[in-house]
Amino acid sequence: MSEGFPGYRGHALKLLKSAGAEIGDVIQVTKGEEVWEGILIPRSESGDEYHVVIKMKSGYNVGISLDSKATLVKIGEGVKPTFTPPALPEQNHSLPRVAIVSTGGTIASRVDYRTGGVRAALSASELYSVVPELSKIAVVDTEILFSIFSENITAKHWTATAKAVAKHIENGVDGVVVAHGTDTLGYSAAALSFALQELSVPVVMVASQRSADRPSSDAATNLVGAVKAAAFAPFAEVVIAMHETVSDTSIVFHRGTKARKCHTSRRDTFKSINASPLARWEDEDFRLLTKGYKKRDVTRKLKLQPNFDDRVALIKAYPDIKPELINWYVEGGCRGIILEGTGLGHVGDYLFSAIRNAVENNVIVCMTSQCLWGRLNMNVYDQGRDLLALGVISLDDMLPETAYVKLRWVFGQTTDVEEAKMLLKENIVNEYSARTLYDPNII
Amino acid sequence: MSEGFPGYRGHALKLLKSAGAEIGDVIQVTKGEEVWEGILIPRSESGDEYHVVIKMKSGYNVGISLDSKATLVKIGEGVKPTFTPPALPEQNHSLPRVAIVSTGGTIASRVDYRTGGVRAALSASELYSVVPELSKIAVVDTEILFSIFSENITAKHWTATAKAVAKHIENGVDGVVVAHGTDTLGYSAAALSFALQELSVPVVMVASQRSADRPSSDAATNLVGAVKAAAFAPFAEVVIAMHETVSDTSIVFHRGTKARKCHTSRRDTFKSINASPLARWEDEDFRLLTKGYKKRDVTRKLKLQPNFDDRVALIKAYPDIKPELINWYVEGGCRGIILEGTGLGHVGDYLFSAIRNAVENNVIVCMTSQCLWGRLNMNVYDQGRDLLALGVISLDDMLPETAYVKLRWVFGQTTDVEEAKMLLKENIVNEYSARTLYDPNII
Repeated sequence: MSEGFPGYRGHALKLLKSAGAEIGDVIQVTKGEEVWEGILIPRSESGDEYHVVIKMKSGYNVGISLDSKATLVKIGEGVKPTFTPPALPEQNHSLPRVAIVSTGGTIASRVDYRTGGVRAALSASELYSVVPELSKIAVVDTEILFSIFSENITAKHWTATAKAVAKHIENGVDGVVVAHGTDTLGYSAAALSFALQELSVPVVMVASQRSADRPSSDAATNLVGAVKAAAFAPFAEVVIAMHETVSDTSIVFHRGTKARKCHTSRRDTFKSINASPLARWEDEDFRLLTKGYKKRDVTRKLKLQPNFDDRVALIKAYPDIKPELINWYVEGGCRGIILEGTGLGHVGDYLFSAIRNAVENNVIVCMTSQCLWGRLNMNVYDQGRDLLALGVISLDDMLPETAYVKLRWVFGQTTDVEEAKMLLKENIVNEYSARTLYDPNII
Repeated sequence: MSEGFPGYRGHALKLLKSAGAEIGDVIQVTKGEEVWEGILIPRSESGDEYHVVIKMKSGYNVGISLDSKATLVKIGEGVKPTFTPPALPEQNHSLPRVAIVSTGGTIASRVDYRTGGVRAALSASELYSVVPELSKIAVVDTEILFSIFSENITAKHWTATAKAVAKHIENGVDGVVVAHGTDTLGYSAAALSFALQELSVPVVMVASQRSADRPSSDAATNLVGAVKAAAFAPFAEVVIAMHETVSDTSIVFHRGTKARKCHTSRRDTFKSINASPLARWEDEDFRLLTKGYKKRDVTRKLKLQPNFDDRVALIKAYPDIKPELINWYVEGGCRGIILEGTGLGHVGDYLFSAIRNAVENNVIVCMTSQCLWGRLNMNVYDQGRDLLALGVISLDDMLPETAYVKLRWVFGQTTDVEEAKMLLKENIVNEYSARTLYDPNII
């Protein structure tokens, strides 16, 4: 985040100064017949000196290159709003208690129009001011754990988030909401699913695809749905709460181990893969979409297992992928490899010898499918059987991303390879689906 | 393929001999209360000595482990069918001429029940015997180019296939069908799309998910659809012909650059991503589903450009992926890297310095999204802008797999990095979609 650091220099800075334009002003850039208008916003420091970035009316930021023919004029003063958080609304202490733990991402932020920067806005009072109906649902406590976009979230953040959630549960809240960016939310949801077992209350991860300052934002609807689920839903599992469709009418709760971001920009980007979502919130009601689920039970004792080993790799296989890549990981001390193979669980035979070498070096090699949908069957074709004979472990219908997280978690629990293999095959938090649950057309 | 080599030894072989069971016989294996029955089929040579593999009534092969409690009896003699190809049907030379080039895969094979092995079955007479209606559609010439499962297809096969197709087009056929396994069909279809430009007739790639000996096979329907398209379709592009749904009523033709295998076993596994399929064949009719397409035109002169450079990598990014991986590729002489990033086109900031190093070493680094659906927009968040500033090239809505193939093809055409970048951004064979074509919900 580039708060307070405009980031302009060289040619761009010169043009801005000549025009008398500052961050927050409305500028117009003309290049031949092309004209752009928008609010000048700061750039990141690593940018070059030949671009300005403006926030267009659409809400998106656009970088415009300033060649020798470009002209730049200021056409409006910047609006310099001040933001005074309102006083906390009177709290109704008969309502459930919900903790909101924020890790960052679009949902946890608001855009400061003056700087163009993005600020975390998750103090309880700021949240109530942005989404006032929250105060009618629950008594909300907020904690800003991190303030980072989710592409930068790594296992150390998974661990810290799991510990923070555990602390709130220990303090007796009725549910926890975790605000997170969408980019790696699927990975983090799988991580919390393994790290927080035997939950007594729901842990609802929530995100948004459009920031709250855009008319089409999904932030408020998702957040309200998430807080309602944390407060009232009958399940006690790690779920992701997002739009079910592009309309605002329903929020679905995907199981943390079965969900994946499947669209760069749509609000219904998350899909449950090889599984039904756990529940839907629609018309002020929770509808359970699966039969088996872990029920809320305040007497249940949380098993916090927040450790992840980092000596695991995820490799997507493709034609001519180099076998030396696998050797490189093995030589570097890698303990486990998740292959994202093709079809029912295959990779090119030119990888076989490297895979054999990995297995002989006590590296666990697992198979998943880049198809994403459907389950593996490595017994159909000779080449699948050959891979099984080499010692490759078929992970059935588990998502590659979940498999990567699980193997890291497994090695966080045990250093014994045979015990690790047993944990891998065990269905711990619905990372495997029963065959009949999701697709009658398979086989 | 393990034709003629049963592959049994040790404990399994002993049990089979005691039971007097040979390959092709029906056997029954009992373990406690579990009972399996099926035809004993050969194993691959790399198998262990504690499993037998049988073909169940469902058509699937199952490996059964033989522990000390397992019993094995023979309950039926093997059927030993002979297969005499029928004489070629009388050919109607007023019909269009279609060449079928076979590279292997399930569609090009039939299972030999005696050996359990899979045989290529693509001589013209064998094809007519399996799918007799083909002789009413076209005069079919067949060529068995390879006989391999598609997980083993690499760029040298793309090159050879492109050349074989070009030769048939030069010989004046009305269309070419390429039979191929499903696993890497998406990659190969992209490769042929770039290698065979300015087509005069259709090049229809076809595959099947279920072998022709299974009741639910899609092989005949897909093949008939493909041959009809090669003979009569109005378009002259590289397409994939597969089931549109799980029923047999329609075949869709996906553009070679926009299709992806999205289910391990369903017959409608291929989906056009970020694009509409080009056409549908239903009720004996072609319906075009897109406006712009390349029309059949026998006067058009084929541009055969079948070369692919192998110094390109596809890297799926995930939390904690090691920056050293990028360094390793750069040090190994890699010329281009396709990143499969998250969301709108991001990777963790811990990769930035390795990416900068790659770009400084003249390696082209491109961004695609593991979301698969939707297009990139690297101007929305600071971190996307930072990546652009580092020199990363945004590939908009191009599939990661197509991007990998395209970059290999680009470096097969030029060694100049700037020229390569220009080719990458050029929309050559619809690898980029126009924004309005596919998703009104985006922005």
